[in-house]
Amino acid sequence: MSDHFIAPVAAAPVAEPVGAHEPPYYAVVFTSVRTEGDNGYDETAERMGELVKEIPGFLGEDAARTPGGLGITIAYFRDEAAIDEWRHHVEHQAAKKYGRAHWYERYTLHIAKVEHSHGFERARG
Amino acid sequence: MSDHFIAPVAAAPVAEPVGAHEPPYYAVVFTSVRTEGDNGYDETAERMGELVKEIPGFLGEDAARTPGGLGITIAYFRDEAAIDEWRHHVEHQAAKKYGRAHWYERYTLHIAKVEHSHGFERARG
Repeated sequence: MSDHFIAPVAAAPVAEPVGAHEPPYYAVVFTSVRTEGDNGYDETAERMGELVKEIPGFLGEDAARTPGGLGITIAYFRDEAAIDEWRHHVEHQAAKKYGRAHWYERYTLHIAKVEHSHGFERARG
Repeated sequence: MSDHFIAPVAAAPVAEPVGAHEPPYYAVVFTSVRTEGDNGYDETAERMGELVKEIPGFLGEDAARTPGGLGITIAYFRDEAAIDEWRHHVEHQAAKKYGRAHWYERYTLHIAKVEHSHGFERARG
């Protein structure tokens, strides 16, 4: 078999923080420490990431996790009505209940109204 | 030399998200993608982490970074006066200027007033 046909390796997705939107908008900050093991977390997290995009007023999501340490997810919404819609989503409610039973040692949730924001991007040479 | 004198390895610090405070308080959310290499980042980050603790009204800080991906730091403050004091701190201003020149490909800063928060901790068996 010719090595000309080696499939190209997909480039890793470039991390891109959610940009500054025009205030006011809302940030839902979720900081957590996970239990050991996956326990179905990755699959559900991916599903939730898709579902939340369907909420009108959803502006984007940032996520980071230090290996063995803290995880932070921040979802941005245009207004409180959008947050409420996501909070009451049946599948999301089930995931939260399952998460408290299986995935999280501890977490804190902060719901905050963004009053100022700005972004920076390095100039390309 | 006796192996009885091998120094104990320090236990890794247990990650602990900042807890829910009584609203209102403020969250300063900083999401970033770093340039390649350290370029003095770790040393300055540690110094800033010490300095911010001296700001009256500083409530705590959460940080996470996905290797090769997004970093998120959230500093919590009691009020806007505390944020202003930290923003105008001379050493912090110098670090921000250096960071834009050397450490960051891009970042977004969101300053948000926390209106609701709550925490969860797994019951110990």
